[in-house]
Parts: sequence; C-alpha cells; structure tokens
Amino acid sequence: MPVIENAIILPKDQLPRQWHNILPQLPEPLGPYKAPDGQDLPAGALAAIFPPQLIEQELSDQIWHPIPEPVLEAYAMWRPTPLVRAYRLEAALKVRSRIYYKNESLSPSGSHKSNTALAQAYYNAQAGIHRLTTETGAGQWGTALSIAARHFQLDIRVFMVKVSLDQKPYRQAIMRLMGAEVLASPSELTQAGRTARAQDPNCPGSLGLAISEAVEEAASRADTNYSLGSVLNHVVLHQTIIGQEIKKQLQLAGEKPDYLIACHGGGSNFGGTVIPFCPEVMAGEKIQLLAAEPEACPTLTKGKFGYDYGDMAKLTPLLPMHSLGSDFLPPSIHAGGLRYHGASPIVSNLVKNQVVTPVAISAKDAFAYAKIMANSEYIVPAPESGHALALTCLKALELEKQGRPGVLVFTLSGHGLLDLSAYEKAPE
Amino acid sequence: MPVIENAIILPKDQLPRQWHNILPQLPEPLGPYKAPDGQDLPAGALAAIFPPQLIEQELSDQIWHPIPEPVLEAYAMWRPTPLVRAYRLEAALKVRSRIYYKNESLSPSGSHKSNTALAQAYYNAQAGIHRLTTETGAGQWGTALSIAARHFQLDIRVFMVKVSLDQKPYRQAIMRLMGAEVLASPSELTQAGRTARAQDPNCPGSLGLAISEAVEEAASRADTNYSLGSVLNHVVLHQTIIGQEIKKQLQLAGEKPDYLIACHGGGSNFGGTVIPFCPEVMAGEKIQLLAAEPEACPTLTKGKFGYDYGDMAKLTPLLPMHSLGSDFLPPSIHAGGLRYHGASPIVSNLVKNQVVTPVAISAKDAFAYAKIMANSEYIVPAPESGHALALTCLKALELEKQGRPGVLVFTLSGHGLLDLSAYEKAPE
Repeated sequence: MPVIENAIILPKDQLPRQWHNILPQLPEPLGPYKAPDGQDLPAGALAAIFPPQLIEQELSDQIWHPIPEPVLEAYAMWRPTPLVRAYRLEAALKVRSRIYYKNESLSPSGSHKSNTALAQAYYNAQAGIHRLTTETGAGQWGTALSIAARHFQLDIRVFMVKVSLDQKPYRQAIMRLMGAEVLASPSELTQAGRTARAQDPNCPGSLGLAISEAVEEAASRADTNYSLGSVLNHVVLHQTIIGQEIKKQLQLAGEKPDYLIACHGGGSNFGGTVIPFCPEVMAGEKIQLLAAEPEACPTLTKGKFGYDYGDMAKLTPLLPMHSLGSDFLPPSIHAGGLRYHGASPIVSNLVKNQVVTPVAISAKDAFAYAKIMANSEYIVPAPESGHALALTCLKALELEKQGRPGVLVFTLSGHGLLDLSAYEKAPE
Repeated sequence: MPVIENAIILPKDQLPRQWHNILPQLPEPLGPYKAPDGQDLPAGALAAIFPPQLIEQELSDQIWHPIPEPVLEAYAMWRPTPLVRAYRLEAALKVRSRIYYKNESLSPSGSHKSNTALAQAYYNAQAGIHRLTTETGAGQWGTALSIAARHFQLDIRVFMVKVSLDQKPYRQAIMRLMGAEVLASPSELTQAGRTARAQDPNCPGSLGLAISEAVEEAASRADTNYSLGSVLNHVVLHQTIIGQEIKKQLQLAGEKPDYLIACHGGGSNFGGTVIPFCPEVMAGEKIQLLAAEPEACPTLTKGKFGYDYGDMAKLTPLLPMHSLGSDFLPPSIHAGGLRYHGASPIVSNLVKNQVVTPVAISAKDAFAYAKIMANSEYIVPAPESGHALALTCLKALELEKQGRPGVLVFTLSGHGLLDLSAYEKAPE
C-alpha cells in the first residue's frame, strides 16, 4: 500500500451540528455596544440592518446554537474540510515538528467566508429580506456572500475597496458571474462615499469606508439589510465550525497541538479557529493560540483597547475592541482582507485577558513562506493565509533551533488563485 | 440526518493501480507513425525527445500498465476525485435526468492535466533528464507540468501561445510561482518561432506552433526532453485513471450511464474518460460516448482522417489522425485548450470506427451553460469543460422533451478560476 494518507477526513455525519458561542465563557464580560453618540444603544437599533436571529446571536448568553438544516445542507457541499499533514512543507523547512493545515480553501468561494455568508443569507431570507449590501476588501467576503445570496435567492450589492478592485479584476468577475452588483468604494451612491471622494479624488478606499457605504444604504431601505464578513459576535460564532472540526480531527489523529495559529483581519477566522479550544486553555491547558496580523495594519499588537466605531463614517455602534482608530487608512498591502482598523470584540477580549497572543508578520515573510508552501504543497495560499503560514513556519524553525519539535496547526483560510497578481508584485 | 451526500467518494485504497492501454483492443490497428518525410519512422527517432518508458508506452501491446509508486503517491495528493451528483444543476435545467460530473478540477493544477504531467515528469527524471520544454494553450497543461517538474526536481521552460498568455496573465503568474520559465510563442528563441514572426509580427500563435518551438529546443539539447499534454498514446494512457474511477464510482452508486461526455481538444481528457468503457461498448453495451469539441476548431466533426503532422513546422512524426491541417490557425477562442488542429490517433480511430461520436458545441452554449453551472453548483468550469457541460445539458433537455430521462456523466476537466477574464468577454 504505497499511498500516503496525509489528510484527516471527518465523515459527513461528523459535521458539527452547533456553533460555539463563547460570550458566556469569556474571562470578563464583553462591554455593551453603545450608540454612535456614546449613549446606551437603543432597543431595536440593530434591527434596521440585521435580521432578528442574528441580533439574538450577537448578544446571546447561550453557549450552543443549533445550525439550521438548510445551512447544514449548504455546509455539506464541502464540509467537513480536511486537516492536512504538510509533510512536504515540513521537509522544505527541514523541521521535525508536525505541521497541519485546516484547508478552508475548498469552499465554493475558496475561503472560510462561506461559513458565515450562508448562515447570514439564510437568516435574512427567513426574515423576508430580498436584498443585501456589503463591503469587501480582498474580495473573499464579497465572493462568499454573492454565492450565498444566490443560494438563498437574494439580490446583492457589493462595495469593493477600490485599491483591491484594481489589484484583483478576477474578484469582480467571479462576483458578477454569481449575479452580484459590484461597485468600487468610495462610490458616488452614498454620502460617505461622496465625502471621501471630495476630500481625496484618488482615495484608495478602506474596509472601514466601504462598511460605511454599505451600512448607509441598508439603513435607508426597508427591503435591504447589511451583512458583515467579520468582527461581530454572530460572524465569529458561525466560524466556530472550523475549530470544532479541527478538535475532532486532532482527536482522531491522536495529536495534541502545541500551537494553533490563524491570521487576523477582523477576527472571525482567528476566533472561529481558536474559540473551541479556549475553555480548556482558560482552564490551564498548554496550547498557544496565536493571531497573525500584518505589520502594516497592527490592530492587536499596536492598537489601543477601548470603544471605537466599526466604520469610517461613524455610522456603526461603538464597539469595545482593539483599534488603530476608525479614521486609520491602512497602506495598500496585498493582503486586502487584513486591512481593517478594528478587531472583533471577542478576540480583543481574549487578547486583553491573555488567552490568545497576537504577533505581527511582515508582508515579506507572508509571501516568502507562501511561495515555499506553493512549491512544496502545490497550494497557492491567499495572502491573508500567508500570514498564519509564515508565523507557523517561523515558530517551527524556532522550535527546531531549540531542539524541541512540536505540533503546529494553522488555518489556511483561503486559496490565492484570484490573488496571483499580488504574488507578482510581492515584496522580495 | 439532514445532510445530503451528493458525492460518490472512493476510499484512497480504491485508487486504480494501473493505466488502461486500449491499443491492443482498438477496432482496427493504429497505423504506424511515419517520419516527417513520409518514410518509416527510424528506430530511435523518438528517443531524442522522450524517455524510453514513455516510448514503450506509446507503442505498447500490453493492456494494463502498472502506475509507478512515486506517481501513485503523487496522485494520492488529490485522487480519487469525487463523482458528484449535480442536483442543483438538474433543478436549474428542470430535468429529471440524473447528471453527474467527475471533478478533475481538484488536482494541484486545477485540471486533469496533472494525471499525465506527474507521470511524464517522473519517467523523465528516472531517465536522468534535468530539463523539460513544453507548449501550453490555455495554460492548464503548462501549470500542471510546472508543478510536476517541481515535484520531481526538473527545470522547465514553457512556450505559451501568445494570445492565451495575453488573455490570462494569472496563468503565467502561477507557472512562474511554481518555478517555471514562461515565454510567449512565437518566440525569438527558435527557428520555428522566428519564421512565424517574420511572416506575421502580430501572429497570435497556436498550439501547433508552440509545439514546434518546444520540440525544436528539446531535440537540440541532450539534457532536455519534450513533454506533450495531449494527443499521444502515452498521454491518453495516463488519463485513463479518470474513466477507471468513474466506472468504480458508478458501480458503487448502482448507476448505469446512458451518456459519457468529455470535451475534446487533443483527446487525452476525452480518451481518458471513455477508454475504460470502450471494450463493453464495442461488445454491444448501450452507452453513448460523446466528444464535445468547439465549433471554431472542429477537428473531429469537420477534419479529415489521414496522416498529418502534430505541429506547424512539421518537425513531429506523421500521425494517423483527424486533422484540420497542420497549418490551420484556429481563431482566438476563449477555450484555449481546445485550439488544436489535430486529434489523438486513438480517439480518431474510435471516431472512424463509430465507437465514439463527436459533436461540435458553440462558444455561446459553452459559456451559457457554464454560467448556469456556476450559479447552481457554485463551481466555475474551465471554458474547455464548459463544452462537455453544454453538451450534457443539451442532451438532458432533449431527453426531457422526449419524456425519457437518463443518466449523464461528464468530466469537469478543470476549474475556470484562472480563466475568469474569458467569462467577462464571453459571447452572449
């Protein structure tokens, strides 16, 4: 039997049936959201843009949330995703550590974003909504929500950060192919967009600004809701399917992880990966939970914890989170999905309480290790995932130097096939 | 248990261990290859560009060829590939027929081409070769051979048809990322390329011309061999892994196919899909084996059967095949992988003897059904695969009209994520 089985595959009937809400298990309570003016958030404030079930999830004190059957059926298109032992990457690095990657690139959209996109589209359709607006940075979220909207028969308008849209024409093409309307942000359609363009006609846009545009439009139309691809509690909740599967897969393989690593932009991929492991880590188990963020947008390592707006135009509630300031315009780095000034309140809370540790990764390292992975595992990582990969490799090399190889698991949040232009322009 | 299992998955230990050589089972013997001057091919003529084991496979009278263990291990990176019931596509078409697709897009290169690329790179490495040259049209073959060369530690130079290279910048990017050298064909490096450019400085290139360049260079260097992505018997042989898996999977599902459909460019994807079914079809079993070729390059439906050159500069042996003429310059259609004047001698033989049937498909239909598949199955088919898909859908609709739904299986030879620009410019 010469065939190496390098993937730990869960059978379909082992697909987790619930999402894991960590709110009631956090080391300290999450502070309440506040209205943009700093006052208590009025009851019903979120209802203008979100359906009731997502609002309930946002503030829930119940740990387990059953996944609705239509969402579970949609997940089964590609889930459970494999946990793959990266034998050839280990050999390329010359390390004795065992490296595993959770391959979230196999979803219909090519990234983990489909996990929450399908849930959000479903709940909106259930609530009688016909149309969604959203923002997208690198395009992964826009692609995922376009497919989810198609699946649950909703119309969708995507505000795509202008610099990313210019860098990634194929992203626009796939969203359009799936039936979405795609606009460059800042656009002329919203007050937020017009203001930004008046200040700087060449404004490259940012996630914070695109969120302003999408929220402004959703708030002003009764048939339209807004959908966010990261940051908020309900988004992080849906992504916990990732970590739950990893946990089962590691048990199946008889492995105990030393490091669990994911990239961090808004926090949903990282939160979704580590949350199922947080209760035991808080109880003293020795697993290092590391968030890999870009040096160019160091929200968790350099940002301040406090209340801040989720968007540039200050339309969203004030959230208790790490932030570089809602008017921070991150440089045009090639990992567009990590260009966000803020962070998930849940992840911020876990950082503040030292359950998880953020590490800043240079774009140079992210692309260098992404090339090594492409040349050994024959998978092109998304530039975002390259940050998690780079941190994993750097840790494995460090352990090798110290003569104590370990078990490292990272989430490959998506593939980079639609980001290949970024590789051509990557820093050397 | 709400989760629908729509994929027929073979366990890893069911991976076929042999390739199926149909040469000794053909309805009439394949005519011998001839030297470019029409004389008998001198012994050793192929040895200038191919390793001994591929030459042996090219002319073998043995039905079963064991797959070498290093190739089998490489296959196990992604094989066996799933056979997927396209429930949502059936619903979108409103047909009662059961449609299955063999998903070859899951390979490291995103297409079936990896099946032969890994085998060819392995045999060349075994023969002490250090460097490969090849041509590529759409870029699928070039990507596959770049990855295979990397896996078996060979250098590689790819001559990419100029019009395709311009249409598909991401293809060049992924080959380079994998370590290949990529040149636009016609180039200045070969006599064949210089001649074409002298005749027409804006020459868009063709597969036949790119083959001339790659063969010319390989023939003139001892450390360098040439590798072909389709047409030849050994290439078709390696692709029979596809049809063998389909056969096992249909048995597992208890299905008897009425139609087995694949697209046809040079013939390896089509041959690989149908060959394992040919012996029983020749024995009278009622399965229609349909080759979907583009109307713009109708080699099998409009070409003449006879001896012709495999390339434009007439460097290759004369092959007994259907051909539009070796100087035929196909129009710049968006399914670059189907732009070839000739056809596999094996497939030509099967067409001539009415074991298989070719059908020409318009680019308009190919893209129209590809969009329907993208919007229902959330997979972007390669434009090449769109031809097989379109023929499958047209047949399913025809069966529906006749009130006799059936079972249709097609090979999704690759994904179109690196071909999205073609979708943007697709004929309406």
